[in-house]
Amino acid sequence: MRAVDLIIRKRDGAELAPEEIDFLVRGFTSGEIPDYQFSSLLMAVVLKGMTPTETARLTRAMIDSGDVLDLAGVPGPLVDKHSTGGVGDKVSLVLAPLAAACGLRVPMMSGRSLGHTGGTLDKLESIPGYRTDLSPKRFREALEKIGFAMIGQSESVVPADRRMYALRDVTGTVESIPLITASIMSKKFAEGAQALLMDVKTGSGAFMKDRENARALARSLVATGAGLGRRVAAMITDMDRPLGLAVGNFLEVRECIDCLNGKGPREEVELIVQQASRMLWLGGLTGSPSEGEGLARTRLADGSAWKIFLKNVEFQGGNPDVLLHPEKGPKASVKRPVASASDGFVTGLDAYTTGIASVIIGVGRSRKEDTVLPSAGITLTRTPGEAVRSGDELCVVHGESERSVEEACRLMAGAYHIAPENVLPGPRLLEEITRA
Amino acid sequence: MRAVDLIIRKRDGAELAPEEIDFLVRGFTSGEIPDYQFSSLLMAVVLKGMTPTETARLTRAMIDSGDVLDLAGVPGPLVDKHSTGGVGDKVSLVLAPLAAACGLRVPMMSGRSLGHTGGTLDKLESIPGYRTDLSPKRFREALEKIGFAMIGQSESVVPADRRMYALRDVTGTVESIPLITASIMSKKFAEGAQALLMDVKTGSGAFMKDRENARALARSLVATGAGLGRRVAAMITDMDRPLGLAVGNFLEVRECIDCLNGKGPREEVELIVQQASRMLWLGGLTGSPSEGEGLARTRLADGSAWKIFLKNVEFQGGNPDVLLHPEKGPKASVKRPVASASDGFVTGLDAYTTGIASVIIGVGRSRKEDTVLPSAGITLTRTPGEAVRSGDELCVVHGESERSVEEACRLMAGAYHIAPENVLPGPRLLEEITRA
Repeated sequence: MRAVDLIIRKRDGAELAPEEIDFLVRGFTSGEIPDYQFSSLLMAVVLKGMTPTETARLTRAMIDSGDVLDLAGVPGPLVDKHSTGGVGDKVSLVLAPLAAACGLRVPMMSGRSLGHTGGTLDKLESIPGYRTDLSPKRFREALEKIGFAMIGQSESVVPADRRMYALRDVTGTVESIPLITASIMSKKFAEGAQALLMDVKTGSGAFMKDRENARALARSLVATGAGLGRRVAAMITDMDRPLGLAVGNFLEVRECIDCLNGKGPREEVELIVQQASRMLWLGGLTGSPSEGEGLARTRLADGSAWKIFLKNVEFQGGNPDVLLHPEKGPKASVKRPVASASDGFVTGLDAYTTGIASVIIGVGRSRKEDTVLPSAGITLTRTPGEAVRSGDELCVVHGESERSVEEACRLMAGAYHIAPENVLPGPRLLEEITRA
Repeated sequence: MRAVDLIIRKRDGAELAPEEIDFLVRGFTSGEIPDYQFSSLLMAVVLKGMTPTETARLTRAMIDSGDVLDLAGVPGPLVDKHSTGGVGDKVSLVLAPLAAACGLRVPMMSGRSLGHTGGTLDKLESIPGYRTDLSPKRFREALEKIGFAMIGQSESVVPADRRMYALRDVTGTVESIPLITASIMSKKFAEGAQALLMDVKTGSGAFMKDRENARALARSLVATGAGLGRRVAAMITDMDRPLGLAVGNFLEVRECIDCLNGKGPREEVELIVQQASRMLWLGGLTGSPSEGEGLARTRLADGSAWKIFLKNVEFQGGNPDVLLHPEKGPKASVKRPVASASDGFVTGLDAYTTGIASVIIGVGRSRKEDTVLPSAGITLTRTPGEAVRSGDELCVVHGESERSVEEACRLMAGAYHIAPENVLPGPRLLEEITRA
């Protein structure tokens, strides 16, 4: 088998055989197939696609490129959730303890901020002392004792994905549904999950800006799960406007504390309850996707999810005192409000612009080497559907430098759309795909 | 400017700006743009194409990547011919001295055998002593004194093409009309030609097997010439069957000697006369493409082309005695005839199979490192349109090892199609494209 012949076959639109895909992934991971051949193959995949069978095999080959966490014997269904990334998307921090409180085990492997979107690991690490680099042994222990654990991707799990992603990033081959599918799914199933709920974001603040692409990715994820013999369901949710009222690392942790104590933004709590319910169904604990919503609401209201979250923070090295007294946590030295320039209604708040503004003040990274600020962020005083008068506070920008805060304020002033006639925001949950 | 952004633009079907193309070619040639980015770009070009404007700029940028032969002051129009490669295609060796005899100067930079096709340099080097590595000074001198010169591509001319071709070869990005166009045109115009006749082969023994692709390449070559301000015309000629009666390096030289002495195969001589005439027109010496055919026939018949050929061979270090007494030249130690298995007519002789058979006996190279044999080849006793009886000799295979000759004989027996009803072969010259 020669790599160049397989590149040519893919270029000409053929379906690669399972052993051909294995050969390519193995060769690339070991370094026998050079980057310049693999990038040409990746571009052919971007432009010619992959069938569901090919995508599932690619995912399997990527999983096989490294270690697989062995969670055999951990009691209870192991179900994870993954979001394709958004602005203010802090759901995981509430959902994982809630799902655990409802009887699931949640082995969650998350990522860092990317582009204009936030990262779960960055949010968690804004809690002083919190470590996301648990050993496999401690990860398992957390799942057994507490019910969930949150870690970053280790070097030894799916090394093919790390190498492939680094190459895709510089060769214009990121935007490909089969490649995105295999990247997500390989990591999720290498971490030991038995089933997976996918939250595919769509809209200006998502990577899949248009609905049609989001649907195609959601379908691909569910089909690939089926091809791997795993239960996968997908929700397509709106990310045209930020989720909740806070964007930023510790500011989002504070909102999560509110959610876990019955004081979260209604729409956000509703989405979390829906997602917990879908996870229960995927784990086989309920008979239909929405059946567990009542249980999830109860576990959120009775404080059991909150208790599990506190236990996790303590187990992963974080300071629970900061959760009990969030005013002791990271606080920004510069705060500037953005005021409305006119009377009317907030008819839109652009999630992408909000994300860019948050990167400027240090919530995310412009370059890989950048460090994120735990204190920086944006709190939304007004959200779409609300009335405003000229001079009213729309949001507050929190940061550590006057200059960056001012720049972010300018962007936020443009991110708000104020119009004389109100337009109520649409639903968050746009669509569900529950079978391949 | 970042390479990845330009890759993405090409991937998405955009037209690259002139300065963007310059940036990419310059960066790749200098090594600043790594192979893995360039190969991804190449695959995007293969699948998304390039406009004529982009192709012309790519050609220009490739020319500018290295030295350009300065032929200013050489008297007479400088016109070259290039063939996309075929089996038995020895035209250049007769055409160059013939065009020179008609008043043109022919600065010819040729290649070596590639795949199943022969190479002009390999044919010339089968003449004992012949050197194709003339210095620029000697090249110019040959053009001034003799009227034509034949050289290989030097390291310093179009280095971008050498690097690009090496990468294309291993990344499945050879088959692309804009990339093929730029590769051919950059070399031709860097060698100092003012105008160019392209012989685009089509059929089983050509790289462009189907007519539609050959036409697209021919049009691209002519349009790119116009974009560079050069006169370029293209002929599409048939390569379903080999050209002439000999395939092999010195065997083809012998056939060229025949052509230059009024004893060449009729069809082949006719094609050479047509090509010489088109070159005269491109050089501005005649008013229409076919006007010079009479003059070309005369110069072939009166021996002036033959005299120029002898002078060139002497100038380039070859032994003219071998041309005057070809029986003193390289001769194969093993010769085997292939006989017809049935009565009937030769209705076809597959050029591709003939080319593969010739590579097996050492006419061409299976791998870059292989050396070619001057003596090896195939002489065709019967060609399409002729009657045969069972047992008649169809061809003779010449080689240096029993085993390879036997294998080639088996292939040649299959290359001939014998049928009870005759089918006359179609014309060689299928189509001409004389304006963009």
